[in-house]
Amino acid sequence: MSNKTVKNINDSIKQWVRPEIRALSAYHVPPASDYIKLDAMENPYQWPESMVDEWLQLVKEVELNRYPDPSALALKQRLRDSMSVPDNAEILLGNGSDELIQMILMAMAGKNSNGESQTVMSVDPSFVMYDMVATYVGMNYKSISLNDDFSLNLDATLTAIEEYQPAIIFIAYPNNPTGNLFERSDIEKIIDVAPGVVVVDEAYHAFADDSFMDKAGSVDNLLVMRTVSKMGLAGLRLGLLAGKVEWLTEFDKVRLPYNLNVLTQATADFALKHQSVLDKQTQEICSTRTELINKLSEIKSLLVFPSQANFVLFRTASDQANSIFEKLKDAGVLIKNLSPAGGALTDCLRVTVGKPEENKIFIDALKKALHK
Amino acid sequence: MSNKTVKNINDSIKQWVRPEIRALSAYHVPPASDYIKLDAMENPYQWPESMVDEWLQLVKEVELNRYPDPSALALKQRLRDSMSVPDNAEILLGNGSDELIQMILMAMAGKNSNGESQTVMSVDPSFVMYDMVATYVGMNYKSISLNDDFSLNLDATLTAIEEYQPAIIFIAYPNNPTGNLFERSDIEKIIDVAPGVVVVDEAYHAFADDSFMDKAGSVDNLLVMRTVSKMGLAGLRLGLLAGKVEWLTEFDKVRLPYNLNVLTQATADFALKHQSVLDKQTQEICSTRTELINKLSEIKSLLVFPSQANFVLFRTASDQANSIFEKLKDAGVLIKNLSPAGGALTDCLRVTVGKPEENKIFIDALKKALHK
Repeated sequence: MSNKTVKNINDSIKQWVRPEIRALSAYHVPPASDYIKLDAMENPYQWPESMVDEWLQLVKEVELNRYPDPSALALKQRLRDSMSVPDNAEILLGNGSDELIQMILMAMAGKNSNGESQTVMSVDPSFVMYDMVATYVGMNYKSISLNDDFSLNLDATLTAIEEYQPAIIFIAYPNNPTGNLFERSDIEKIIDVAPGVVVVDEAYHAFADDSFMDKAGSVDNLLVMRTVSKMGLAGLRLGLLAGKVEWLTEFDKVRLPYNLNVLTQATADFALKHQSVLDKQTQEICSTRTELINKLSEIKSLLVFPSQANFVLFRTASDQANSIFEKLKDAGVLIKNLSPAGGALTDCLRVTVGKPEENKIFIDALKKALHK
Repeated sequence: MSNKTVKNINDSIKQWVRPEIRALSAYHVPPASDYIKLDAMENPYQWPESMVDEWLQLVKEVELNRYPDPSALALKQRLRDSMSVPDNAEILLGNGSDELIQMILMAMAGKNSNGESQTVMSVDPSFVMYDMVATYVGMNYKSISLNDDFSLNLDATLTAIEEYQPAIIFIAYPNNPTGNLFERSDIEKIIDVAPGVVVVDEAYHAFADDSFMDKAGSVDNLLVMRTVSKMGLAGLRLGLLAGKVEWLTEFDKVRLPYNLNVLTQATADFALKHQSVLDKQTQEICSTRTELINKLSEIKSLLVFPSQANFVLFRTASDQANSIFEKLKDAGVLIKNLSPAGGALTDCLRVTVGKPEENKIFIDALKKALHK
């Protein structure tokens, strides 16, 4: 076995790795230690100590040396109850919504009758993984710009659906990174005309007033996606897809058989058994969100967008977002700078709703940053 | 939003789901509760109680409400030390080897210069996920039959490499489900002539006498894969790929950013810090394997194959495997019946090395099954 010198490794990579992949940069997540973390839509609250102790007793009994239940039956039943999944809907689980998006697209990444790659559609701006995973699996990605107020441009969306005949349409409801709920009737119209499936991504459902979950299982081309990440379990990586059994049977075929490990299954099951604790945290976040929006709205130079999620999007005066973001960081507060994304997000910053004391530090630091 | 009746859901699935996926059956894992589980190559041993207590103290501090470290830096360093990954090799982590296989293939699932899908190659019989994931991502899969004694057919393999120009060749070393190590020089030859990458899958390394790990990072087209599953951590789902940074940078681009959850990262790190406990278990399994092979070899009607893994493959008298398998199951012992796979595996059964008392129950039940 010689170290081959006949061909340079870079030539070899060029020959064998798909050009779309080579063109990608790896998804970069900045390190966040020692900051007040208001950048990642995490729930800031811990569990009560008695609940932690009860959980540890359970963890102690988990058999780390055995493969997990590949069908995750107990956890699925718990999620069905907890998230009011209709009886006629099937459930598919993944390592976060990310893996579910990957399974759906992998199953549908074929060619259309013209021999072209099938199309994934969403709106812009929205959750970045729709676009990224479409690239991973070699599908086309088309996004339709939202209106200036981040509402859905229904006419443009319907025209694009007619033109591109997407296999999948993703609608984040509420939308990320904008925080708003689109008009329900607009989404219903999209589901009506979509030639393929529509995934309503309800990652932020816990903080919102509306849901399509009750239609999962009865509307043929509707799939509803949820996650436990925003319920205080971001570290677990657990997402759920609900819909007609016919679709989910196909997606399940590309699921890696032991995708959910034993600790995720046991811990999520335990946490959802204590739903009232999670619900109380969610309610706390919702009322804190109102305070945060009020405080931000008092600052004249900011345009604050309405939110049905656990974060708030706001626009700064022209060309101020980058410097405000950096000044906040210097003050030890990490939020998300969306301005580099450009377009409608130019001058926009996104802040996760933290604990009241964290939000106060953020508001104080923001005011200082604006007056420097 | 009407429940569309214009098109049947099955027609819709036929239009949008790739035909290769529709043709698949979901990977079926039989439920195994209440059996003596000798079917899945699990390590049967638990940790000492003091180690469990120490682990729980650590788990208690894990922040479930925060996203995991996307780069898994601490765990990577621990694995580097524990598995003697060379300094010049990069590391990529996945939810078990399964997800690593998926990342590699997703990155390389392009077309060749003739517009045909790129080819994945392995030997037959070998680990089923190579073939399955190739189908998931739309690649061709070619396997080269092993010789009757499950040794590598080098000439046929080299000819096939020349003919099919595979993007990736997977070699399980030791091989699963056969248990043997191929000739090292044969694999070196394959690495020399392979036009793309060669993944040496060392899932069963803990029980084997040889490894390619020391070449990872210095041989351009070699990737070495490991898992912690057979070290008593099957429930965690953690796999490792080591190789040149140039390749791993590309594969990392299709990694879902938060693929490894907080509990997996913390627990694997902890377990490998106590490597001596795991090593002791491994040594116990290796010596128990010798006893098991001796006991099986005493049974005249069986052909027992050599093993460098934590399982033993044996061939029964003609047409006996299915009934022996069922009789063992009736006696409460679950092993793996490979006979339905056909070919060289006809009449073959595979038993995982259990605890001495489990192996004794298995041997007794097997003898009874043979004499019924």
